[in-house]
Amino acid sequence: MTIALKEGYEPLTEATAVQLIKDLGYFDAHSSLRCKEIGDGNLNLVFHILDENDKGIIIKQALPYAKVVGESWPLTLHRATIEGNYLKNAIPLVQELVPQVQHTDEAKALTIMEDLSHLDIVRTGFISGKDYPILSQHIGEYLAKTLFFTSDFGCNQQVKKGLQQAFSNPELCKITEDLVFTDPFHVSETNDFEPELIGTVETLWEDDSLKLEVAKLKYKFLTCGEALLHGDLHTGSIFANETTTKVIDPEFAFFGPVGFDIGQFFANLLFQAITRSDEKKDIILFHLHQVWDTFIQTFTELWQTASVEPFTKTEGYLEHVLEGFFHDSIGFAGCELIRRTIGLAHVADLDGIEDSSRRLACKEVAIKLGRELILQRSSISRTNEIVHLLEKVKRGA
Amino acid sequence: MTIALKEGYEPLTEATAVQLIKDLGYFDAHSSLRCKEIGDGNLNLVFHILDENDKGIIIKQALPYAKVVGESWPLTLHRATIEGNYLKNAIPLVQELVPQVQHTDEAKALTIMEDLSHLDIVRTGFISGKDYPILSQHIGEYLAKTLFFTSDFGCNQQVKKGLQQAFSNPELCKITEDLVFTDPFHVSETNDFEPELIGTVETLWEDDSLKLEVAKLKYKFLTCGEALLHGDLHTGSIFANETTTKVIDPEFAFFGPVGFDIGQFFANLLFQAITRSDEKKDIILFHLHQVWDTFIQTFTELWQTASVEPFTKTEGYLEHVLEGFFHDSIGFAGCELIRRTIGLAHVADLDGIEDSSRRLACKEVAIKLGRELILQRSSISRTNEIVHLLEKVKRGA
Repeated sequence: MTIALKEGYEPLTEATAVQLIKDLGYFDAHSSLRCKEIGDGNLNLVFHILDENDKGIIIKQALPYAKVVGESWPLTLHRATIEGNYLKNAIPLVQELVPQVQHTDEAKALTIMEDLSHLDIVRTGFISGKDYPILSQHIGEYLAKTLFFTSDFGCNQQVKKGLQQAFSNPELCKITEDLVFTDPFHVSETNDFEPELIGTVETLWEDDSLKLEVAKLKYKFLTCGEALLHGDLHTGSIFANETTTKVIDPEFAFFGPVGFDIGQFFANLLFQAITRSDEKKDIILFHLHQVWDTFIQTFTELWQTASVEPFTKTEGYLEHVLEGFFHDSIGFAGCELIRRTIGLAHVADLDGIEDSSRRLACKEVAIKLGRELILQRSSISRTNEIVHLLEKVKRGA
Repeated sequence: MTIALKEGYEPLTEATAVQLIKDLGYFDAHSSLRCKEIGDGNLNLVFHILDENDKGIIIKQALPYAKVVGESWPLTLHRATIEGNYLKNAIPLVQELVPQVQHTDEAKALTIMEDLSHLDIVRTGFISGKDYPILSQHIGEYLAKTLFFTSDFGCNQQVKKGLQQAFSNPELCKITEDLVFTDPFHVSETNDFEPELIGTVETLWEDDSLKLEVAKLKYKFLTCGEALLHGDLHTGSIFANETTTKVIDPEFAFFGPVGFDIGQFFANLLFQAITRSDEKKDIILFHLHQVWDTFIQTFTELWQTASVEPFTKTEGYLEHVLEGFFHDSIGFAGCELIRRTIGLAHVADLDGIEDSSRRLACKEVAIKLGRELILQRSSISRTNEIVHLLEKVKRGA
């Protein structure tokens, strides 16, 4: 398989990246610029450019392939357009919570944006024990605003259908369909787990009641265009410090089920809750409660003040919608816990645990908690119950 | 509001329609052709052209407006492209059940197709007491094949997303959103009903439990892209005789919930079941059972033999999917019963009843049956139960 490259596309080097940024006039022509490629090189090139006063800028360029276990898979450059459009679309909604985009170039598949190097990647910070006290309030607001204002409750329904067309993102959705919903629950070459876990994994593969529930969640992901999702909202897609939060990397954006974004964030908090000692866990559980509480509070305010849908005045409808979002979020969180443990793409929260028996024990908990969340999602109505399930699974594991 | 017309668009007259068909070479240049405009002129022009041997052809051309209660509303010509594409897309799936398309012209917003004037419009035939014994088997197959092969179960999921983009149909969807789901359940200028019904109608408007369920069904219509729907599958969109069935007018086609097509057909059978005497009703109830039985039988065969989705092998998944389709169908049928009785667009099955007390009694039954179907849809599992509800409502009305 090959990919047709648009005319004008060529991967940048550190030298051509500097030239480009000078040509675009972001720095004085006589500036002495330093440039470093800081991406992991799997999907994108990321150039960090600084002038002599340490004023910086980022150029992110999509590569026409994804490196997966050493092999390169062709992957559409259109994802750079999706990312640029999402960020531009998000700006009026959550201006303070995304990087400022300076420039996009569809043919070159690049986005030039604000330098966020003064902030931490939240996953890395969490693993090192740091905290970001306002993170969950910010993410709760981010979720409520981006999802409400692109849903049929907060967006003119004609405009929404146009956006839905513009954000059609089949190739990136396929990655999620396969790697989150399908492969981890079937024998598949993409799966990746320690041999010690085979017993637990085989139990999943033979569990028809679980697979039926995963099938329903996958179908929701395939068919349910509720709102414009970020599509990959894990703690590696968030920069933060004590006062600021910035969500990055929305190249998976498309119109999907609201619970998917929420559930991915839930799950990536839960990896920390699984790995931390009891006393250090509380701050993570605080974030779990706070993100959902902020989400429903903000979403409710918007429902009451900014609705475009006449039925939002109907008694009981808001509660029904929020309940549906919550159950979906729990189910999607369960899938994320499992796929990040036994599927292709892992998380450093688990893989970085050096002690192998502790690492395996945490992975067992992640898999079993994932399973319980998927199976029990419709009877869970508060974030507290997630914590109880986690404790129950930990005691049993 | 005005609509930008594409260059090359001009409404045809009988004379220019004849010229066009000659230019396209469908008849010998020396043929003596007769042409009659047979459309109702509300949305489209329909020219029926015959040569001296009564060999015929149809030209259907979209008008750039809809005539609604005397006023003209601008309406996209793009619906002609949607219709042409749907029919061309449907041909490999249900070749025998749609008119053969000879030619489409996007700029002129027209479709040239097979002359079906040897067949009856099913609604008209039903009202006059005729029957079409194979109708429900054909429609069951039509529904199963068109819906399965455009769903994530039977269509490559990447291809489906492309089709979903191509069949984005916001303006026509908006007509359904307003006229089926919103207006009949609120005080609205578009509603249209006899003053004698005001008590029953006001009861609907004040019924929050009903409105909550309608809100859920509308949300499903807005967000749930399960398969490529016909979008307007009532008995006025079907031609038939004793052996042949042809579905026409798919200009409302878009990716929506499977139950919507099924439910519209159910409801339009139910109008006949409501108006007919007990002995003449049985053939209609036979069609109600037969269309669903044929649908599930055909859909099940396709699920087992033509699936592209690995989870279709999961125990219990087919049953879950079919049950969901059925509950949705019942709910959508309920909305259709109500909106065709008190909303903007009526059906001749009811409005054509000359005796006013009988007409009003039938309308009361339609409204009340609609309400019960919407409220009880999740506990109805067989078409027989629809019949029991109809009998119960009739006894109570």
